[in-house]
Amino acid sequence: MTKHRITLKDIAEKLGITVTTVSKALKDYPDISEDTKKKVHALAKKLNYQPDSQAVALRGKGSKTIGLIIPEIVHYFFSSVINGIMNHAESNGYRVLITLSNNRLEMEKKQVNLLFSTKVDGVLVSLTNETKGTKHFDILKEYDIPVVMFDKVDNKFHCNKVTIDDCLGGYNATKHLIDSGCQRIAHIRGPKKPLNSIGRFEGYKKALIEANMVFDPSLVKECTEVVYDEGYQFCKELLKLPKPPDGIFAVTDQVGVGALNALKDAKLNIPEDMKIVGFSDSQIAQVSQPPLTTIHQPGYEIGETAAKLLIEDIELRKKDPNHMFGSKQIVLDTHLIKRGST
Amino acid sequence: MTKHRITLKDIAEKLGITVTTVSKALKDYPDISEDTKKKVHALAKKLNYQPDSQAVALRGKGSKTIGLIIPEIVHYFFSSVINGIMNHAESNGYRVLITLSNNRLEMEKKQVNLLFSTKVDGVLVSLTNETKGTKHFDILKEYDIPVVMFDKVDNKFHCNKVTIDDCLGGYNATKHLIDSGCQRIAHIRGPKKPLNSIGRFEGYKKALIEANMVFDPSLVKECTEVVYDEGYQFCKELLKLPKPPDGIFAVTDQVGVGALNALKDAKLNIPEDMKIVGFSDSQIAQVSQPPLTTIHQPGYEIGETAAKLLIEDIELRKKDPNHMFGSKQIVLDTHLIKRGST
Repeated sequence: MTKHRITLKDIAEKLGITVTTVSKALKDYPDISEDTKKKVHALAKKLNYQPDSQAVALRGKGSKTIGLIIPEIVHYFFSSVINGIMNHAESNGYRVLITLSNNRLEMEKKQVNLLFSTKVDGVLVSLTNETKGTKHFDILKEYDIPVVMFDKVDNKFHCNKVTIDDCLGGYNATKHLIDSGCQRIAHIRGPKKPLNSIGRFEGYKKALIEANMVFDPSLVKECTEVVYDEGYQFCKELLKLPKPPDGIFAVTDQVGVGALNALKDAKLNIPEDMKIVGFSDSQIAQVSQPPLTTIHQPGYEIGETAAKLLIEDIELRKKDPNHMFGSKQIVLDTHLIKRGST
Repeated sequence: MTKHRITLKDIAEKLGITVTTVSKALKDYPDISEDTKKKVHALAKKLNYQPDSQAVALRGKGSKTIGLIIPEIVHYFFSSVINGIMNHAESNGYRVLITLSNNRLEMEKKQVNLLFSTKVDGVLVSLTNETKGTKHFDILKEYDIPVVMFDKVDNKFHCNKVTIDDCLGGYNATKHLIDSGCQRIAHIRGPKKPLNSIGRFEGYKKALIEANMVFDPSLVKECTEVVYDEGYQFCKELLKLPKPPDGIFAVTDQVGVGALNALKDAKLNIPEDMKIVGFSDSQIAQVSQPPLTTIHQPGYEIGETAAKLLIEDIELRKKDPNHMFGSKQIVLDTHLIKRGST
C-alpha cells in the first residue's frame, strides 16, 4: 500500500487552522503565536512531515520560469505591465508564461493549477473582480512557490504586493476638476468589489468634502463591465438630470472616452460645457478628440517592480531554505496628465 | 559511455537534407520523392533510429496544454485571437500558455524552446516581422509536436495555416474609396517583409489599376513600427505634397486614426475633404471621431479555427501514430464596415 505523504494540509486540517498558518509556523514567522508554533511543530514531528523532496529538488535547480495570471489582455495597462515584467525577467535569465483568468474566479483557480503543474519558480497575479479569499493559492504556499500580487491584490494574503494609491489618484482627479471651476462633479465608478474601484471612489468623495461640496449620490453611476459603452450610456443619463453635472471623473479611460463621445454627440463643447478626467493613461486617452486628461498609472513600473520582488524571493530561497518570502506593500506614484478635456 | 540517441537531425545531416524532409519521408508524406524516402528509411534502419520514447510516452498521456506565441499583446486584434483560442481550447479540456515574441526573432526562438520544455501538446504561432526561415521550429517537428500558424505565416512551413485574404481586404478598402468619389488615393503601408502588409499593398494597387487610376509611388508611405504616430506624421507629409490625396487607405486602424487626427489638427473636414479607411476593426476605429471605416478582420474566428486545427492534429495523432499533420491553408473572409470617415 502506498503511504500517503503528509502535507501541510493534513497538519492544517488536524489542527483546524489554515495551510498558510502551518507554513508560517514551520518557518517561524513572527506573526504566528508561540502557542500555535508549538502545536504545529509537535504534530509535524509526530506525523513525520517532510517537505516534498521532488519539489525541493526541482526548486533547487529551478525552471527559471515565472508564471503570470492577468484578468484580461485587451487593456493597454496590462500590456505595459507585461512589458515591465518581461524586460526585468529576461535580463535576469527568467522566462515568462502568461495565462488569462478572463476576470473569472474559476479560471483563476485553473490557471494557478496549470502554472503549478508547469513547475514555474514563482507566480505573479492580478486578481479577478470576483476573487474573494485566496484558498486556491495554498498549493503554491505548500510547495514554497513565492507569489507577488499587483494591481488587484488581497490584503490578507501573505506576499509582496505592488499597487498604486487609488484613493490619492481619485482625489487628484477630482481636485483638478474642482480647481478648473467645476461645481457639480459626477463620478462614473467601477464595481463595488475591487479595491481599486473603491479607492478611486473614496478619493472622489474626499476631494468633494475637502472643498465643502455636497456629495450627491445621484451623480454617481456604477459600471459592471467598466467598458466604453457604459461611459457613453451613463453620460447620457447624467445629461438628463434636472441639474446635470459640469465635470465627470471616470474610473477608467475607456469609460471616460465613452462619456466624452456622448457629450460630443449631444453637441456639447469640451472642456467649455463639461470637463472630463479619466484614469490609466491608456492609448485611447491620447487619441480621443480632445485628448483626455487622466491619471497616469505606471504599468511598466508596476510590472518591473513585481517581477523584481518575485525573482528576489526565488533567488534568496535558493540560497537559504529558511528565507521568509517578503510581505511588503509597494505603492507606486500616479500623477495627473492634463490634456484637452479639462 | 552514454550512447548518443540517433535523432532526425543526425539522419538529416548525414543525407544533407532538412529535418522536415526526414520527418515527412519517415511518415510517407506524398510530397517527398520515392528516392528520398528510400534513402531515409535505409539510413534510419542502419543507424537504428528510434522515435524518442519519453517523448512518445509523454505524448501518449499528453499535457492537455497548448502553447501560443504572439508578436505583441497590445493589439486589440491579438486579444480577440486569444479569446477565440481560449474558448475553443477550454471547451475541449485544453489549457493555454501564452508567450510573447515582442516581434523579435531571437525572442521567438526562445519561446519555441520554452514551450517545448514546458511539454505542450502543440503550438500556435503568429510569426514576427523579422522571421525568415523556420529552422527554429525543427525541434517541434522532431518531437512530433504539431504547429498551426495564423495571421503571419511562413508559406514554406508544412503545417495548417489560418489567414485572411489581405489582398482582397486591401482591394475592398481601396475600391470603397474609389466608389466614394476619391480621385487620388494614398496608402500608408506596413513594412516590406510581412505577407499581410504585402497583400494589402497589392490589393491597393489592383483596385487602382482596375479603375484606370495611375499608381503614384509618391502617394505610398511605409511604416516601420506600424503605430499611431507614423499615421499622424505620414498624413502631414501627404498634405504637403503639391497635389495631396483625397483619400487614404491605412494598413491598420492605429495608423488610420493617427492620419485622421492629423487631418483634424490641420482643420480639414472628414469625410468631405478627405476620406480614410483603416484595417482590423479594432476598438480605436469605433471610438475615433468620426469613427473609422475599416476592414473587419475576424480575430476571434482566426483564433478559434487555429485552435480547432491544432487540437484535431493532437487528438488524431494520439489515436493513430501515423496520422499526418494537416497542411491546409484556411482563408477567412473579411468585410468592410462603413463608418463616418468615408
